[in-house]
Amino acid sequence: MSELKRKPLRLGVAGLGTVGVGVVNIVENSGDMLSTRAGQRIVVSAVSARDRGRDRGIDLSAYGWHDNAVDLAGDDSVDLVVELMGGSDGPAYALAKACLAAGKPFVTANKALIATHGKELAALAEASKTALRFEAAVAGGLPVVKALMEGLTANKINELYGILNRTCNYILTRMEREKLAFDDVLSEAQKIGYAEADPTFDIDGIDTAHKTAILAAIAFGIAPDLGNLPTEGIRNIAPVDIDYARELGYRIKLLGVARQTGEGVEVRVHPAMVPLSSPLASVMDATNAVLITGDQVGQTGYEGPGAGQGPTASSVIADVVDVARGICYPPLGVPVNDLKKLPYLGSESHIGTYYIRLRVTDVPGVMAEITQSLAAETVSIESMLQRGHAEGGGVYIVLTTHETTEQSAIAALSHFNALDCVLESPAMLRIETA
Amino acid sequence: MSELKRKPLRLGVAGLGTVGVGVVNIVENSGDMLSTRAGQRIVVSAVSARDRGRDRGIDLSAYGWHDNAVDLAGDDSVDLVVELMGGSDGPAYALAKACLAAGKPFVTANKALIATHGKELAALAEASKTALRFEAAVAGGLPVVKALMEGLTANKINELYGILNRTCNYILTRMEREKLAFDDVLSEAQKIGYAEADPTFDIDGIDTAHKTAILAAIAFGIAPDLGNLPTEGIRNIAPVDIDYARELGYRIKLLGVARQTGEGVEVRVHPAMVPLSSPLASVMDATNAVLITGDQVGQTGYEGPGAGQGPTASSVIADVVDVARGICYPPLGVPVNDLKKLPYLGSESHIGTYYIRLRVTDVPGVMAEITQSLAAETVSIESMLQRGHAEGGGVYIVLTTHETTEQSAIAALSHFNALDCVLESPAMLRIETA
Repeated sequence: MSELKRKPLRLGVAGLGTVGVGVVNIVENSGDMLSTRAGQRIVVSAVSARDRGRDRGIDLSAYGWHDNAVDLAGDDSVDLVVELMGGSDGPAYALAKACLAAGKPFVTANKALIATHGKELAALAEASKTALRFEAAVAGGLPVVKALMEGLTANKINELYGILNRTCNYILTRMEREKLAFDDVLSEAQKIGYAEADPTFDIDGIDTAHKTAILAAIAFGIAPDLGNLPTEGIRNIAPVDIDYARELGYRIKLLGVARQTGEGVEVRVHPAMVPLSSPLASVMDATNAVLITGDQVGQTGYEGPGAGQGPTASSVIADVVDVARGICYPPLGVPVNDLKKLPYLGSESHIGTYYIRLRVTDVPGVMAEITQSLAAETVSIESMLQRGHAEGGGVYIVLTTHETTEQSAIAALSHFNALDCVLESPAMLRIETA
Repeated sequence: MSELKRKPLRLGVAGLGTVGVGVVNIVENSGDMLSTRAGQRIVVSAVSARDRGRDRGIDLSAYGWHDNAVDLAGDDSVDLVVELMGGSDGPAYALAKACLAAGKPFVTANKALIATHGKELAALAEASKTALRFEAAVAGGLPVVKALMEGLTANKINELYGILNRTCNYILTRMEREKLAFDDVLSEAQKIGYAEADPTFDIDGIDTAHKTAILAAIAFGIAPDLGNLPTEGIRNIAPVDIDYARELGYRIKLLGVARQTGEGVEVRVHPAMVPLSSPLASVMDATNAVLITGDQVGQTGYEGPGAGQGPTASSVIADVVDVARGICYPPLGVPVNDLKKLPYLGSESHIGTYYIRLRVTDVPGVMAEITQSLAAETVSIESMLQRGHAEGGGVYIVLTTHETTEQSAIAALSHFNALDCVLESPAMLRIETA
């Protein structure tokens, strides 16, 4: 082996769940490969976790132990801290601040932390000229933070779409394939460990919002901002909408969307219909994907696992090797002082096309009332279909609109809600033509 | 703007074709954006091209001029050389050696150069601790060299498939969509500038071989090696094979394949049938794609333009920004002294499944002769079909095999060639289930 730096790079690992164990395993089993790639031997020096006695299938006896993860920041046997505890505040946040203030490189898989405190932590890292890396926070395994921050750095990014939560994509895939209701798939997914006991974080879009906030920040050179990120999850997706989507040539996906126009930026998370011809439509099961459009490169796409022990640990180790290779630049891609303050465009002003499903009484004159409501808001119809009998009585009328503002589409929904012939609150989905 | 390094990073651009002009344009038009991202202002300082007087739509008057590109290496006004001339030898090679020996960072889009002299140039770069970067050499625009070398660095790479030549993919796409013959599409592609006047480099797979050699080198930690890279192009693909592929559930693509097993590595370029369900099958027109499987991450996929002014310049500038950010590690991902010498597995020993098409006389007993030839080489049939009348007389028999060695499949072809009932040399295509 050729010249290596004399001293190894000694990791302190905070959090020994699935991913932490994965990181320890790679470091222990791929030492020679990593050394030649990193130019420096990488070793685990100390660890911290909640329960010291738990059997994790790895031998911890050679490592230092800290009951309090924050102590890793001050441990002189640790050159770099890997944080895998999760949570936007509490010990993860305290540990990040302590490390970066002390000039100790910090690698994390914690999307909540970066989405919430990214700007403050980046400023700390810059002040001490220390690396702060978070590839594993978005689409674990797939180097999409790196693609955006380094590979596409010559581009003004115009838009970005992500399928970023594997629980949601798994649920939507099974709902479509097996014609099941949301609740039934969710409870099955919980049984086999594909969904958490408390699934709120995933299915209400919060996890996707964290990841989208991070990608949007890097793409546009702004601070991560969860406060300007309208978020809707997939709880209200009905099997009938999945069927109609298919019939109309679409598939329903939970998307993170970030778009930049001359007026400002839109960043949002919601389920949407994507054309079956879109690369996003073929992303099934637990796969993640990101489509990025830059002014020079045009559209590029990235697809991979998105989570799991091997994939997430793979991204964590890639960050560690980057640090060993001496890579250290402002953590958000540009210095915190150069972050832009771009206006956020409210979703009201968003111009798009929409899918609307109404359950109505099956009597003459209903169609006239519906079309009058749309006309009143100058929403024009692209396609319309009425089929058989609806569950619960009446019939379904399904329509897609031509381009209109979201404000107008929502106003039309209010009209519908006021009509006697409309039997339940209408369903509406955005159509995204990525 | 926050603190920048005082001095700008001054580029010398060798070659002012489409991509060179694209690089100059980005540097001139996106200066502020690049400065905040790179931490240093980037400027063009000197250029070199064949014809100083040619109108390229850009003003060169502010830049130094060199008739001989190699002089950029010794030009003190140039901090980094961007080489866009092409060619594995000649001035590009001379310029690379001169720059790296002098410790001047060298960024290139030249796949022939890196595939041919990658190891020697990497050694020069390492000796002078200088950056040598070549993201634009493979799938211009798509950061797949970076993904492999940095993003997936925690992985042992098991296999990699690439659709890497846009001329070939464009021709195959149009042959299928419009049921045209190879020669007809090629001459049309030449008219609209999608294929070169001399298309050999593209359609015979040489361009794909250069790119595959580079990806394989990084993936496996070996030297790029065109000498161990069996290469077949798409000249002999007949419309009838494209039709049968479709009927059997496949699509024909020109693939770069690199695979690592316990015995060694296989690196090869050839047209292959891929299942319609494979992500590779949906890569149409001039798009490039790469699928990479690592032991930790599983399969990840990357898709993008692959060539063109904006995309290729985007990759060149990304490398330049990496250099400005101080990124400098061994150019092939590991030091040249640590490159492995893995045995190359001959294609004879490759185990796979095959598509074979025969044109035979339409008389009794033919099928028996065919099946006996296969049995003699212990090649077993997975599916077989016989259809209508073949162009030129006789009938087509089309079959796919179960897994067999390539040696056996080729031996069966020799049997067929010796049969009186076989009217022309059989067509054979590998089936890849990526």
